[in-house]
Amino acid sequence: MKNSRSGNLHFVKLDKGEELISTVSSFANEIGVVSAFVTGIGVLKNIELGYFDVQKSAYDIKKLNGEFELVSLMGNIGRVDGKAGVHFHVVLSDKDFKCIGGHLLKADIGVTCEMVIASTDMKLERTYDPDTKLKLLSPSCCEEN
Amino acid sequence: MKNSRSGNLHFVKLDKGEELISTVSSFANEIGVVSAFVTGIGVLKNIELGYFDVQKSAYDIKKLNGEFELVSLMGNIGRVDGKAGVHFHVVLSDKDFKCIGGHLLKADIGVTCEMVIASTDMKLERTYDPDTKLKLLSPSCCEEN
Amino acid sequence: MKNSRSGNLHFVKLDKGEELISTVSSFANEIGVVSAFVTGIGVLKNIELGYFDVQKSAYDIKKLNGEFELVSLMGNIGRVDGKAGVHFHVVLSDKDFKCIGGHLLKADIGVTCEMVIASTDMKLERTYDPDTKLKLLSPSCCEEN
Repeated sequence: MKNSRSGNLHFVKLDKGEELISTVSSFANEIGVVSAFVTGIGVLKNIELGYFDVQKSAYDIKKLNGEFELVSLMGNIGRVDGKAGVHFHVVLSDKDFKCIGGHLLKADIGVTCEMVIASTDMKLERTYDPDTKLKLLSPSCCEEN
Repeated sequence: MKNSRSGNLHFVKLDKGEELISTVSSFANEIGVVSAFVTGIGVLKNIELGYFDVQKSAYDIKKLNGEFELVSLMGNIGRVDGKAGVHFHVVLSDKDFKCIGGHLLKADIGVTCEMVIASTDMKLERTYDPDTKLKLLSPSCCEEN
Repeated sequence: MKNSRSGNLHFVKLDKGEELISTVSSFANEIGVVSAFVTGIGVLKNIELGYFDVQKSAYDIKKLNGEFELVSLMGNIGRVDGKAGVHFHVVLSDKDFKCIGGHLLKADIGVTCEMVIASTDMKLERTYDPDTKLKLLSPSCCEEN
C-alpha cells in the first residue's frame, strides 16, 4: 500500500494481492486513527460477504471467486476493544455488470483499490448489544435526541 | 438516535424502528443544517423506493418488506420551501446478496444505521422545475458555466 | 452546469443532456483541481460502462439506453499526462429497481446530477502500469508502508 495525507484526509492505494480489511485496520492502528469515515473503489477478488440474519443474530456468508469491480465501498472506523476496527459495506459488479452487495468480511485486492479515510476526533466506539449480539457503533460522548 | 459533532461533520446513529427520512429531516432542521452531503450504511426494513419515470414525470414506487443491508446511502440536504429537505439514493442487498436500488421515499431502521452529515455554508435550494415537475437542487448563489 | 464552492468543497449540478465525464473533467481543469474525491447521485442516460478483464488487460463495454437512476457515483480526480483526469465507478438502477454497476466510460445527464468534489492539495498522479496496462493512481509524494 501507499498513502498520502492532507489534514484529516488520508488517501490509501492498496496493491494487488493485499487483503483489504487487515491492511486498512493495521494502517489505522499504526497512524492512531480510531474514528473515521471511509469510501473506496477498485477491483477485488477472493471476497467474503455477509448478510446479517436478524432472526439468527448471525451473518450468512457468501464467497466469491474471480475478479469483481468494487463499485462502492462505504463505511467507518471505530474503536473496538481498544483498537481501530473497520465496518465496510460494498457493492461489487461482475462481468455481466450485475451488482452483488453486502457487509465485507474479507477480500484481496485485484489490480488496485483507491480509498479515502477521513479521520475525525469524534470518539466512536463499538460496544456489545445483547439484543442483536452485534458490536454496534455509538458516539461515546453524545447527546441523546 | 444519537449524534456526535466535530467541526462540520455530524455522525448520526439511528436506532431500530426509527423512520430514516423523517428522523434525519427533523434533526437537520433542529440543528439548523440546510446544506449538507450525506452518506450512510446499516440495515433497513419497511422500505419504499422510487424510480423517476421521465415520460410520466412521476415516481414508480416499490415497497420492500423484510430486512435489507443498506450497502450505500448517498445524497444531500438542501432548503425546500424554507426548511431542510433530504434527497437520498440507496443501494440495498437482500439475503441472496442481490442489489436493489433507487430514490429513497421511506424506510425504518432494522438493527442500526450509521450516517455522516457533512454540513456546509453553501446555499443549496430545491426549486420547482416545470419541465420535470421535480424540485431540483441548485446553488442559489452560483456561477453558471 | 452550475457550481458553488465552500472551502475545498465544490457542489456541481449538471443539467439534462450534458455529458458527465467531459463536463466534470473540463470543470476540474478550468478551476485547477487535480486531486479530489467525488460522489454524486442523479439520473443518467446513453451510458457506457466498463468491466476490466484482467486476463485481456482491457475493458469489456456495455451500452445502456433509456434512463437510469444514478444511485451511486464514487471516484476521484488525479493528474494524468499533466491534466485532471477522472475515475468514476457507478451503480445504476433500472425501472425494476435492479442494479447495474461498473467503471463509467461516458453518460449523458437525464433530468439532473448532483455531485460533490472535495479537492485536496495531495499530489495524486495516474501513471502507466506495464503489468495491467492501466494508468493507476498513486500519491506522487508518499510513504510506502
